[in-house]
Amino acid sequence: MTIPSHRKRVVIVGGVAGGMSCATRLRRLDENAEIIVLEKGPFVSYANCGIPYALGNVITDEAKLHVQTSEKIKSWFNIDVKTKAEVLEIDRAAKTVTFGDSSEASDRDDEKVRQVSYDKLVLALGAASFRPPVEGINSEHVFTLQTIPDLQNVKAHIAKHGCCNAAVIGGGFIGLEAAENLRLLGLNVTIFEYLPHVFPPIDQDMAEPLHKELQRNGVRLILNARITRIDAASCSAPAAVVLDSSKSIAADIVVVAVGVRARTDVARKAGLEVGKTGLKVNDAMQTSDPDVYAVGDMVETSNLIAHERMQLALAGPANRQGRLVADHICGRKVEFRGNVATAVCKVFDLTVGLVGFSVAGLNRLGLGESMQFVTVHPPDHASYYPGAEPMTVKVAFEIPSGRLLGAQAVGKKGVDKRIDVLAMAIRAGMTIEDLEHVELGYAPPYGSAKDPVNMAGFVGGNVLRRDVEIIHAEDLVNEQMEAERIEPHRATILNKYSILDVRSPDEFKRGHLVGAINLPLGSLRDHMDSLDKKKKIVVYCWVGYRGYLAYRILKQNDFDAVNLDGGFKSVSEGGYEVLRDK
Amino acid sequence: MTIPSHRKRVVIVGGVAGGMSCATRLRRLDENAEIIVLEKGPFVSYANCGIPYALGNVITDEAKLHVQTSEKIKSWFNIDVKTKAEVLEIDRAAKTVTFGDSSEASDRDDEKVRQVSYDKLVLALGAASFRPPVEGINSEHVFTLQTIPDLQNVKAHIAKHGCCNAAVIGGGFIGLEAAENLRLLGLNVTIFEYLPHVFPPIDQDMAEPLHKELQRNGVRLILNARITRIDAASCSAPAAVVLDSSKSIAADIVVVAVGVRARTDVARKAGLEVGKTGLKVNDAMQTSDPDVYAVGDMVETSNLIAHERMQLALAGPANRQGRLVADHICGRKVEFRGNVATAVCKVFDLTVGLVGFSVAGLNRLGLGESMQFVTVHPPDHASYYPGAEPMTVKVAFEIPSGRLLGAQAVGKKGVDKRIDVLAMAIRAGMTIEDLEHVELGYAPPYGSAKDPVNMAGFVGGNVLRRDVEIIHAEDLVNEQMEAERIEPHRATILNKYSILDVRSPDEFKRGHLVGAINLPLGSLRDHMDSLDKKKKIVVYCWVGYRGYLAYRILKQNDFDAVNLDGGFKSVSEGGYEVLRDK
Repeated sequence: MTIPSHRKRVVIVGGVAGGMSCATRLRRLDENAEIIVLEKGPFVSYANCGIPYALGNVITDEAKLHVQTSEKIKSWFNIDVKTKAEVLEIDRAAKTVTFGDSSEASDRDDEKVRQVSYDKLVLALGAASFRPPVEGINSEHVFTLQTIPDLQNVKAHIAKHGCCNAAVIGGGFIGLEAAENLRLLGLNVTIFEYLPHVFPPIDQDMAEPLHKELQRNGVRLILNARITRIDAASCSAPAAVVLDSSKSIAADIVVVAVGVRARTDVARKAGLEVGKTGLKVNDAMQTSDPDVYAVGDMVETSNLIAHERMQLALAGPANRQGRLVADHICGRKVEFRGNVATAVCKVFDLTVGLVGFSVAGLNRLGLGESMQFVTVHPPDHASYYPGAEPMTVKVAFEIPSGRLLGAQAVGKKGVDKRIDVLAMAIRAGMTIEDLEHVELGYAPPYGSAKDPVNMAGFVGGNVLRRDVEIIHAEDLVNEQMEAERIEPHRATILNKYSILDVRSPDEFKRGHLVGAINLPLGSLRDHMDSLDKKKKIVVYCWVGYRGYLAYRILKQNDFDAVNLDGGFKSVSEGGYEVLRDK
Repeated sequence: MTIPSHRKRVVIVGGVAGGMSCATRLRRLDENAEIIVLEKGPFVSYANCGIPYALGNVITDEAKLHVQTSEKIKSWFNIDVKTKAEVLEIDRAAKTVTFGDSSEASDRDDEKVRQVSYDKLVLALGAASFRPPVEGINSEHVFTLQTIPDLQNVKAHIAKHGCCNAAVIGGGFIGLEAAENLRLLGLNVTIFEYLPHVFPPIDQDMAEPLHKELQRNGVRLILNARITRIDAASCSAPAAVVLDSSKSIAADIVVVAVGVRARTDVARKAGLEVGKTGLKVNDAMQTSDPDVYAVGDMVETSNLIAHERMQLALAGPANRQGRLVADHICGRKVEFRGNVATAVCKVFDLTVGLVGFSVAGLNRLGLGESMQFVTVHPPDHASYYPGAEPMTVKVAFEIPSGRLLGAQAVGKKGVDKRIDVLAMAIRAGMTIEDLEHVELGYAPPYGSAKDPVNMAGFVGGNVLRRDVEIIHAEDLVNEQMEAERIEPHRATILNKYSILDVRSPDEFKRGHLVGAINLPLGSLRDHMDSLDKKKKIVVYCWVGYRGYLAYRILKQNDFDAVNLDGGFKSVSEGGYEVLRDK
């Protein structure tokens, strides 16, 4: 046995999620190690996910965001925390880190540059809020919202200038949370989203309910936004965001939330290998230098669905990676098991969640060819028990294996639960058919004997086994567009399909597909003869179940049929207005 | 290819969960089959799980419990439903079923006995509410609460007699739901539970919060109840439940909910094999006669944790089994994958849930020897976001494999979600260490970067890897009792252990363990010398985390230590009053 000649010194750069998890786990495993944490900002171990809510005073006291103070970290963990310490350079040959003072300009001592040596170095620098190259993006009234100083700056600006009109650039996680919280402060809020829908990781149709919810709460939404410049207030004009349409939207405060970029500059300068989206690490979170680890938002980790390494800016994986690095430094055999990218977000009264990839995301990855998906609209709990709310769940799976590739859900209640359950299914490598068999807790206030997750399994399993053939609203739109392209004036998918609505006449009257005929399910067996056997029948109901029953009846009577996935509800709420009879 | 000489006739006995799922699936797969459903009661396809809530007018309209009417089932599914049709006999040689009229006595035509032949027979008779052999158990004011007629009878009795005092015999699922709903009607409610705690599938300490919640809501609780007789009202005395202590508790209505017994009489008479708890079936749900299937509450299915066949009276598995039988009848290769017994129940403002077995249950199964468990008390979501509520999660796993054996949880919010996530983990065969790695949706309103499920994984993983040795409050109680047995007057576990409380002096003052000394975590490194190295140190804090940190410090400084699982909170809320300094 060799006796170490000196106390092992571990320097950790970054004192929030990943860095601090590493530091505290390391101390638990090794009382003897010297642990130094260098944090660029003024605080360590704070809850940055709470920042948008502290802006809206949902979290009433900023102090609540401070998970641990430097003093407690010293007293409980004997860890040496240096705040306002920004790493400038890593000398891997000498195994030293150089860091400087990152206080506010007024307090900063640029001479105060110091060096510390390390045995092991852990990089947890995170990712920086990206500011797109737009004229005026660095104006004084334009902010990002990532750190506690950011929060303080935004709050101070609103207080000082009595802001009325807020622009949020970017409709992702932080943008949506920022918009909701600015609205709660009573500001007029406009979201500018470059893409055709908010919350980019999900599909367009799943985002439509979010659009309605934002508008219902008085948030103005500009999709496909092309911002040409951001104007500060002048003598002649108020502050505004200007679009390429020359349209100008008043905005005396602008929050930029268009995503983050891994902070890899220092690592790159030190010659560490950097990938497309972040620093490269192996499964033990070691960079190309085995004495230098990296964790969290700055690294690329394996995505279990895409089988690719990707950057993922989420707190959970960062924490677990930090913990794992401490284990590895202490000589334990550990490996990071990769991500399934589970995410959930509150948008006023709605919850939206995702695990794996959206259908659009799978198409972008080139996985669309051997993929199918199903859409269900179950209630969050037994509909006979008060307070049940519908949700929409969309689950994608591989053909023919059935392997789950992604799930999205949106609704008022129970969405986070189903996404977590589906995250477990994806992590466990389950198939769509496996979802038929899972056994979830059922009492009327919480679920149904056939849980939404089972329902997705039943519907998807039927598709996988070819008990039903489905068509998506999106497919119908595409076919219609293709038909119009070929024969511009009179072409329609009705040349190819009969459209059969098997709901009640009352439901039919309240809205239906263009060209649909109405034959309620209960009369179908007796009136089938009225249907055209030469055309394929697109059958549908409200959510898909009666459509499926009708499909089975038709198919066994030698009709060619296809059931509309998710029913007329998917058309109606998914924004496929073009398919709707006006 | 053989052409069938006649339409296949499937007779299904029982028209609720399992039976009706089978019937409708069968129709979807086979338009041609003749499907006959015989239901003893007046209704088919109703939501019996909602019945307690319809009693309390939480579900305001009994009609909501009717999932499908006989008319709709005829019109949508072309299924022939006969209600008030009770099966009397099965002749397996002749392949016939004999059934009679089961109308109320006044309407019943005892001559109306009919026979129907079958190609395949599906038994879904369910389980009958058990009435314990107590004097007066069949009095007119004593009811069970399983069917819609039961509900109507209870409601009618309360209305007619203006009941004030209700007795609920049995503190399981239905008993708890019945008690809550009777209380909502304004009645004085007493629960009589034979065991030392309500909700028998969970452990005593996990049930303690339920006891408090019931009492907080004005429900009287008699545990270890030994009922000697039930008295109806007489000229001389009001109706009452009488205990062996001769104590008499007024009760003008009594609901018996002490569990169910599989309805196997007809099957047994027909010579089908019956197990200890229900009818025997194989994985295709075939009884010992391959033309006779059985599903739901009346059968024994494989429990994936115990590797034993057991009866399980839950709607979810019944539905899936019914569906599966339809598949098998249609020649598909299917098998029931067994149960993990996921259950959830509302008890006023609390939710309690379970998957697999409790610690006591595992001990009863003989799995206690190679088992360990951990208790955590995390908030349902990030504690800095408003509305966070604590929950208690107890997870048991196999030693040394780590295979998950059971999980229990109780709390105000988020309990159903974690139980479902853990149900997925158990179904997927995951270990306690796997829970460290699972990636659940995190945004402040929904969870934490380290979800309660991850926390259980971290704590349990540490125990499995021997990073920490834990002791349970239950162990300390047992050791104290054993010490007292040996040396009755002055023995105490303090002869063996030092008890170290590492919380703040303020916390210590609010309550602590008998004989504990207080040395806050932050001072431990500097004041360790004051501790006795000859005794094992039981270290604890409020929930276990600081205790674990202290354990790691002590252990690395050559002290013998053990951390109290779940901390002082588990002692305080788990009912281990004997350990508490008075």
